[in-house]
Amino acid sequence: MRPLAEIFSQGEEIIRGQVLDTNANWLSQQLTQLGFQVKRHTAVGDNLTDLIELLQNIAERADCCICTGGLGPTLDDLTAQAVAAAFGRPLHMDEVALQQIKQYFAHRQRDMADSNRKQAMFPQGASRLDNLWGTAPGFALKQQRCRFFFTPGVPSEMKGMFGEWIKPQLLDQFTLQPDHLLIIRTFGTGESDLQQQVQTVSLPPDVSLGFWTSPDENQVKLCFPAGYDETHMMETGQQVAEHIGDTVFAIDLNAQGQNHLLTVLDEVMSARQLTLAIAESASHGLIATKLMRAPWLQSSLFQSDVSSLIQQFSQAQSDNTENMAAHCAQQLQQQSTCKLALVQLHQDSPQHARVIYNALYTPDGLRCSQRTLAGNPARQQHQAAIAALDLLRRYLQNKCL
Amino acid sequence: MRPLAEIFSQGEEIIRGQVLDTNANWLSQQLTQLGFQVKRHTAVGDNLTDLIELLQNIAERADCCICTGGLGPTLDDLTAQAVAAAFGRPLHMDEVALQQIKQYFAHRQRDMADSNRKQAMFPQGASRLDNLWGTAPGFALKQQRCRFFFTPGVPSEMKGMFGEWIKPQLLDQFTLQPDHLLIIRTFGTGESDLQQQVQTVSLPPDVSLGFWTSPDENQVKLCFPAGYDETHMMETGQQVAEHIGDTVFAIDLNAQGQNHLLTVLDEVMSARQLTLAIAESASHGLIATKLMRAPWLQSSLFQSDVSSLIQQFSQAQSDNTENMAAHCAQQLQQQSTCKLALVQLHQDSPQHARVIYNALYTPDGLRCSQRTLAGNPARQQHQAAIAALDLLRRYLQNKCL
Repeated sequence: MRPLAEIFSQGEEIIRGQVLDTNANWLSQQLTQLGFQVKRHTAVGDNLTDLIELLQNIAERADCCICTGGLGPTLDDLTAQAVAAAFGRPLHMDEVALQQIKQYFAHRQRDMADSNRKQAMFPQGASRLDNLWGTAPGFALKQQRCRFFFTPGVPSEMKGMFGEWIKPQLLDQFTLQPDHLLIIRTFGTGESDLQQQVQTVSLPPDVSLGFWTSPDENQVKLCFPAGYDETHMMETGQQVAEHIGDTVFAIDLNAQGQNHLLTVLDEVMSARQLTLAIAESASHGLIATKLMRAPWLQSSLFQSDVSSLIQQFSQAQSDNTENMAAHCAQQLQQQSTCKLALVQLHQDSPQHARVIYNALYTPDGLRCSQRTLAGNPARQQHQAAIAALDLLRRYLQNKCL
Repeated sequence: MRPLAEIFSQGEEIIRGQVLDTNANWLSQQLTQLGFQVKRHTAVGDNLTDLIELLQNIAERADCCICTGGLGPTLDDLTAQAVAAAFGRPLHMDEVALQQIKQYFAHRQRDMADSNRKQAMFPQGASRLDNLWGTAPGFALKQQRCRFFFTPGVPSEMKGMFGEWIKPQLLDQFTLQPDHLLIIRTFGTGESDLQQQVQTVSLPPDVSLGFWTSPDENQVKLCFPAGYDETHMMETGQQVAEHIGDTVFAIDLNAQGQNHLLTVLDEVMSARQLTLAIAESASHGLIATKLMRAPWLQSSLFQSDVSSLIQQFSQAQSDNTENMAAHCAQQLQQQSTCKLALVQLHQDSPQHARVIYNALYTPDGLRCSQRTLAGNPARQQHQAAIAALDLLRRYLQNKCL
């Protein structure tokens, strides 16, 4: 039997629909991967009676509960007070937490408001969960059968605290037998095509298959029951990946390595000490934005007008946008001190479809790709950025186009 | 007293985190706007015991409940069965629903599987909700104090059925008096400071106050009960905004205009036919990315190395980064054809805090701002971009610094 888990989200903004509760979704994925059976999500507003009743119910029926929200400094943040009332655990000041909050403000050269003191008040018997990502510390306690963990609702803070403190404690407190999850990451093949390609592979009967799509990548997921041999799993994964082909850019087992497209690029660029200069058009600054943590990106130029962008690098005029992109990439590489130069140009067709041309100048010659964009402006911007990065990935992984 | 509503979502894929439950969020917005008080969201998996218990609880505590999911043809779709068991209402075949399902398949020239018959079985006393957008019809029934509406989990089907059948029934069955919501949008003042500033304003006793924080803005929310006069609401909003000061960039009533920072910028830039050139450092391309839909952004240059960025515009050398930003902004404006030029430079201090300097060159002279960044790299990048855009906003709205 897997231990039972629940997710509990607090906030008027959630139950009124002002904020989409992505925390419950993310935490469920994490807990399921760890080997818990997630049984229920509940969200309630800033109402003490509701909070108390729910906490008491969860303490009786779940082995673990992650609670987000309600730890802020304002009057409508009631979580600690509700825990105190629900379980008869009076609040007391945690001096370490108070110091942490004071330091948070001091570090930012701002005064701590008096209301922030409340954030250092914990129910009796609770252990502090340090918040290295914001002001509000969290806390953990065991009540009846259930281990409760309380974190702020801000996703970055919640995720930081889960990874740093809660996950290690769960692994320590529970005997978990998680399934093994193998993720095949692809870019450039749609979900229904992936499904058809994978259908021809005969999988062991106890292995289940799933698909997941995001703007950054399309995943094929293989779920193996506990006890499977790692080599066997990787072999099965490779076999499926071969059926899919060159759009596969990484295979991850058990989320040990999160080999997103950017991680894959970063590894090779850093290992080969390569640097990159970019000129972007349709992606509108998003290539540079996505490469925030990449020390190998030296510069990026965006121009809203494609012909102005071309003029930065070339006096030549041509109606062939693909050729111009290649020519500009060569010029950009020569003007910069980088080994690689990537230029993206685009052309809007009379039917309103936008076609992008990516050209990558490398010591091994030019690489080019082309793609038609679709959807709303934000989606097109995203597709343009990822298509450019995928061209770079194919060069670095020595994949054909 | 507002009638109390709950949202109930069914599906293993939701509680395991494979699917993000956007239905609960959308339905909450709709119900809140109609004048319901949404009290709770609950999601459970395909477990008959859990479903029955939850339905019985909701029947006792809510006036209205919208339930999504669990109406499919497979064995794990248990909603109708759970309703039958929870409320002692045996299932019976609805011949009209069966015909509709048969027609759905006939229309698509596909055979109806036997398992689809189940989708036409409704609990005793339920009224059918036709599904014009998919196979599974929904149903409605009143049990104890609660009016239940059951729809499929597919968002397009659920939304179609809500708009076409459920909303008219709710308006007919309940006497609703929706609140008015006034949102004061600010950037650059933290939540606890906002609270202190607003506390000094004496609000009418029936107006409730709320706060909401995101990386892009911090909001103060005033909730007025039904029947308030619009002029009076705007006056109260203005009064609160004056206490907050120059960090307020917009006041929205009843979400008629969603005046986000970018919307506010766009309006003034377009009206005054201004154009902008940017050079960015700490924001790493994110200013350009955020201005995706702004035709008035002409160009943006990112350089990872601040001194390389300075060299693009100036031979001058100075240790005073603030002065250099101002000098570069002037040069950038002269090199471009834009009326406005914005340059962001940054300096990393020995204590690892990064300080950014924004300079905006305008026909009315230079405007500068400075800000210390904190948090993880993505957060710092975000703060840097928004701080630059806020400087532009202050110039456009004629606010001091």
